[in-house]
Amino acid sequence: MERPRHQGMAKNTYMRWRLPLVCLLWEVAMIVLFGVFVRFGPEADAHWEEEKQEMNLTSDIENDFYFRYPSFQDVHVMIFVGFGFLMTFLKRYGFGAVGFNFLLAAFGIQWALLMQGWFHSFKNGKILIGVENLINADFCVGSVCIAFGAILGKTSPIQLLVMTLFQVTLFSVNEYILLNLLHVKDAGGSMTIHTFGAYFGLTVTRILYRPNLEQSKDKQGSVYHSDLFAMIGTLYLWMYWPSFNSAISEHGDAQHRSAINTYCSLAACVLTTMAFSSMLQKKGKLDMVHIQNATLAGGVAVGTSAEMMLTPYGSLIVGSISGIVSTVGYVYFTPFLESRLHIQDTCGIHNLHAMPGLIGGIVGAITAAAATEDVYGKEGFIKAFDFTGVYKTRTPSIQGGFQAAGIVVSLLMAFAGGAIVGGILKLPIWGDAAAENCFEDDVYWEVPEDEESDVYHMHNPDKPASP
Amino acid sequence: MERPRHQGMAKNTYMRWRLPLVCLLWEVAMIVLFGVFVRFGPEADAHWEEEKQEMNLTSDIENDFYFRYPSFQDVHVMIFVGFGFLMTFLKRYGFGAVGFNFLLAAFGIQWALLMQGWFHSFKNGKILIGVENLINADFCVGSVCIAFGAILGKTSPIQLLVMTLFQVTLFSVNEYILLNLLHVKDAGGSMTIHTFGAYFGLTVTRILYRPNLEQSKDKQGSVYHSDLFAMIGTLYLWMYWPSFNSAISEHGDAQHRSAINTYCSLAACVLTTMAFSSMLQKKGKLDMVHIQNATLAGGVAVGTSAEMMLTPYGSLIVGSISGIVSTVGYVYFTPFLESRLHIQDTCGIHNLHAMPGLIGGIVGAITAAAATEDVYGKEGFIKAFDFTGVYKTRTPSIQGGFQAAGIVVSLLMAFAGGAIVGGILKLPIWGDAAAENCFEDDVYWEVPEDEESDVYHMHNPDKPASP
Amino acid sequence: MERPRHQGMAKNTYMRWRLPLVCLLWEVAMIVLFGVFVRFGPEADAHWEEEKQEMNLTSDIENDFYFRYPSFQDVHVMIFVGFGFLMTFLKRYGFGAVGFNFLLAAFGIQWALLMQGWFHSFKNGKILIGVENLINADFCVGSVCIAFGAILGKTSPIQLLVMTLFQVTLFSVNEYILLNLLHVKDAGGSMTIHTFGAYFGLTVTRILYRPNLEQSKDKQGSVYHSDLFAMIGTLYLWMYWPSFNSAISEHGDAQHRSAINTYCSLAACVLTTMAFSSMLQKKGKLDMVHIQNATLAGGVAVGTSAEMMLTPYGSLIVGSISGIVSTVGYVYFTPFLESRLHIQDTCGIHNLHAMPGLIGGIVGAITAAAATEDVYGKEGFIKAFDFTGVYKTRTPSIQGGFQAAGIVVSLLMAFAGGAIVGGILKLPIWGDAAAENCFEDDVYWEVPEDEESDVYHMHNPDKPASP
Repeated sequence: MERPRHQGMAKNTYMRWRLPLVCLLWEVAMIVLFGVFVRFGPEADAHWEEEKQEMNLTSDIENDFYFRYPSFQDVHVMIFVGFGFLMTFLKRYGFGAVGFNFLLAAFGIQWALLMQGWFHSFKNGKILIGVENLINADFCVGSVCIAFGAILGKTSPIQLLVMTLFQVTLFSVNEYILLNLLHVKDAGGSMTIHTFGAYFGLTVTRILYRPNLEQSKDKQGSVYHSDLFAMIGTLYLWMYWPSFNSAISEHGDAQHRSAINTYCSLAACVLTTMAFSSMLQKKGKLDMVHIQNATLAGGVAVGTSAEMMLTPYGSLIVGSISGIVSTVGYVYFTPFLESRLHIQDTCGIHNLHAMPGLIGGIVGAITAAAATEDVYGKEGFIKAFDFTGVYKTRTPSIQGGFQAAGIVVSLLMAFAGGAIVGGILKLPIWGDAAAENCFEDDVYWEVPEDEESDVYHMHNPDKPASP
Repeated sequence: MERPRHQGMAKNTYMRWRLPLVCLLWEVAMIVLFGVFVRFGPEADAHWEEEKQEMNLTSDIENDFYFRYPSFQDVHVMIFVGFGFLMTFLKRYGFGAVGFNFLLAAFGIQWALLMQGWFHSFKNGKILIGVENLINADFCVGSVCIAFGAILGKTSPIQLLVMTLFQVTLFSVNEYILLNLLHVKDAGGSMTIHTFGAYFGLTVTRILYRPNLEQSKDKQGSVYHSDLFAMIGTLYLWMYWPSFNSAISEHGDAQHRSAINTYCSLAACVLTTMAFSSMLQKKGKLDMVHIQNATLAGGVAVGTSAEMMLTPYGSLIVGSISGIVSTVGYVYFTPFLESRLHIQDTCGIHNLHAMPGLIGGIVGAITAAAATEDVYGKEGFIKAFDFTGVYKTRTPSIQGGFQAAGIVVSLLMAFAGGAIVGGILKLPIWGDAAAENCFEDDVYWEVPEDEESDVYHMHNPDKPASP
Repeated sequence: MERPRHQGMAKNTYMRWRLPLVCLLWEVAMIVLFGVFVRFGPEADAHWEEEKQEMNLTSDIENDFYFRYPSFQDVHVMIFVGFGFLMTFLKRYGFGAVGFNFLLAAFGIQWALLMQGWFHSFKNGKILIGVENLINADFCVGSVCIAFGAILGKTSPIQLLVMTLFQVTLFSVNEYILLNLLHVKDAGGSMTIHTFGAYFGLTVTRILYRPNLEQSKDKQGSVYHSDLFAMIGTLYLWMYWPSFNSAISEHGDAQHRSAINTYCSLAACVLTTMAFSSMLQKKGKLDMVHIQNATLAGGVAVGTSAEMMLTPYGSLIVGSISGIVSTVGYVYFTPFLESRLHIQDTCGIHNLHAMPGLIGGIVGAITAAAATEDVYGKEGFIKAFDFTGVYKTRTPSIQGGFQAAGIVVSLLMAFAGGAIVGGILKLPIWGDAAAENCFEDDVYWEVPEDEESDVYHMHNPDKPASP
């Protein structure tokens, strides 16, 4: 039984031809481009036997697969279950949260393999891919999942695909500028993933400002079980974040160190989040929104510095601060952003990704600037910052300056890119829902009749019971 | 408070002596057989120190455990959480879905360790097991989980255990014929797991045809939250499928390549599934049934060929096609199978496993037949297809023929085995529920009174409120 | 809209200053102590390059990170999702189950890194940490999660933090006595984690006995969906238990063997649990409480012996017995403990952890006492029990005696520690709820208005509909 309030909107949000067209055209394009460009890297190619002899490797265990695959799977879970379920907190937008996140991520990773491949894995006219490319593609799409959090419930699936297309492109350009031109370290992506992704998404949602959004205010909250579903997302993000920050670090000590720093930062972040969640609430009760989100800020805030010699107590400090900043953000900044700056940020990504991402960039710059040969060891120092080749003469303080420049570049790219893409998404052709139908799965999904509705009909003598 | 409609059925579905008897007898049998036959393989035995010296290994990291254990855990999650939760989509059969899947899988892996052990790991009168045996046992049970999908909600736990006993046995025989006699490659099990499991299950459900099943039609759908639970299953299957297809591939490039191919195929599959889900629906809305299931077809369809040089674009093509076939199957074939062929396929395994499994077998045969020394390298070619010993002279085209033969054998084994086992399960001694009680946990489980019922009683003045 | 029944309790359970104060003070203390004591171990430090040369390692893959990180992540999931969701079975305590578990575990792992570090990783005035320390910290906190199960729903978050502080301390002392003084083997923690944690928690809940708890009896049950959430916890604990028991075993065969033994034990345990769950119930129906909990007893019961040559059939026997004992415990012992001994054990940890933990300790002692050089091989024998240095002359039977002594010490520590901590928690300053408000999230959490309530208001003409 269709609910009456949507009947008038059917035409506007009708996806039947637009969505299939975009998906199928895109997949054909991917097949053609992959056919022209993408091949297996040497460690995934059947010629590996010969490669091993050339590289003087005595064991298959030296294949990069065994260094990175477990971390890759953890990152994969973060993107699809972590981000997907984190956004199921809305009472009637669970299908959209998990389903559209699934759609845009599957769409985005293919394009990211190409874009990042052209920039980083291009050799003799071919993109050679291995497990590290898969991780990087997931990372890139992670920045889109972040931006999705700002516009959750207010956009059509086509808008999400269009945004993904552009955001993955801009992400790859920004990443190339940071990693290759500025020679910045950012293994956990505080700048490239979180700062860029969040400010990009916030700019987009600013452009797409909906003045009448309070018409769907009743659907913008959670119900008891939707909050528990969201906790699945939270916990998987929280638990696997050490893998996220260490997944593409150098083999050996760097991966090991990243995981430890992130573990410490996240543990501290939980405590300060709980403290401020209770403190900032008149009744002193804990708020699920904070627990679901601000507890993760510690992972974001050590994204750049986790692989450096941040030390465990340094991580505790960074984690503690980011938990406080993030929780305060949910209580004070989010309402301010909405009422004064007209930034409607459904999931509060400003608190979870934008501010902690900035903290992460700054902490990374300071940690890099403070590096000494004494702390890192002679070889470790060069290895940690890759001070080889043309960068042989770079000093820690100069590196710190470049790290800071990386933050600025990421911000500029995010604002400029978000403004352009926001403008494109504002065109009235993408099938987004009216304000009163936001945060409602019924617009784009076949939604089953629920027991609650049965109960409703049961007691409503004017309507026949649903079958 | 017992719901009245089940009171008359209590006798028929009474499990109190039958289920314990089967479980306990079986476990005793397992203990005796394990005691006689099963021992640790050399890499898990405390003699490993001496083994290492004999095999000239310098490091513990060469133990197969480190090559395969992370993939094993991913496969383990797919079997228990993946399949278990995928089937929780029914509104009142969540306990049965997760719980019976748990029961049959725990039952089946023990028997699979023995059956597969006799065929593949038997040495001097003992079955020597290691992590690869655990993976293979999980794989074998995966085929039972698939078949369970066809009969979900319509069978008693004893029927499931009986089916598991026979299906594991037949699976092992079929696997032996394919891998050892035909020398077929099928690391991800398109033929041995999916084609065999699905057609076996479809044959069983055909034999168990229930003409009055529409009496429980109201319980055959989902509710909002049960669809979200099912998405947990979907996503874990989707995310970990690269581990599934690479778990028992050769060390090094083959595992690496399998993971990449599967990753690509699954990404493409999501896009074509979404496209066709919207396109085939008059209102253009997405259907959760398709998203939950057809998005996984890409993993099934590269099961055989993922470890071959399928190439990333080849994977995209296979994934795209399988998504389309699977979604079309849900819309058109499933109703046809039910109305014309009397095949009642609760989860639509024909669309998710049977057809994509066939595609997987065919793609594997073609990919094998098309292999050249140029593409694989001289050593890689021999290693990939194990063209050694008596198979030294086998050519790719002959291998392709044997691969095709593997499909036919799997189909024949599935039809014949399914018919026999279906006949056994039709005996009126196993305690299955009447048609009107299908898809209802209340028959075999203690089900808590829910809030909804409380609400109901609250407004129903004729009945006392539940305690 | 506040539910009337809680309005009178607001003052008592008011957390606004107490909880933040405890959390923030604690975090500051952690930062100071970490700053003074905690540094990266050699394999996570940037000096690793030099370390490698000194240790003559040729590859980064020899870093302990690659031996243990996948297992660490599995254990991490068990602590946060496993224990967290296992306890969501209560109809209105899901936030508290997941959220407080999150809080106490994040709090506890920091303290555990210090306490265990002082005992086991202290070198030149610094605690040097690596991935093994992270696993051990998670293990230690696991024992607190177990104790939490006994007092679930009846304590304030501050009480939980106070308990965590003391329990982690006592755990570390007990662990030191067992592992270092008694030279006991207990890699999976049957004694140190389960026996200690469970009897500690049971003693605490005995001291905190609430005579009027039947006032909240209506909230002590589950609803349909909360049982499914709990199954997420169950399955992750079940699936990853092989990683738990093998995570800190010796590299190579010992890790491999632990995983296999645990896999076998757990599989057998599922069957005997299902059998007894059905058999002990008059209607023969399966009970979700048993499936959620008793199926895990097999993992607990091989915790000590899994890395020994228990053999697969030995594991089946232990798993079978523990499943029976645990299920029988739920049916008969739990009501007895409550009515006669005044031990109110919310989650039944006596059945899941206490008794199986004792079984695990005993099986470990027997398996150790029965060890021979023939079974283990000469080198394997010494390696398995670390019969080196001052322990060079220890025989298996003496080792068995020390193992048995380890059980007794763990029990004494648990009873004494639990009594003291219980006494502290009984002080009327910690803000626990009144008996009629137990098992109710509303006391400490902002709880969203649910659809059910909407329905309620809808039909209640005296009250205005909720906004």
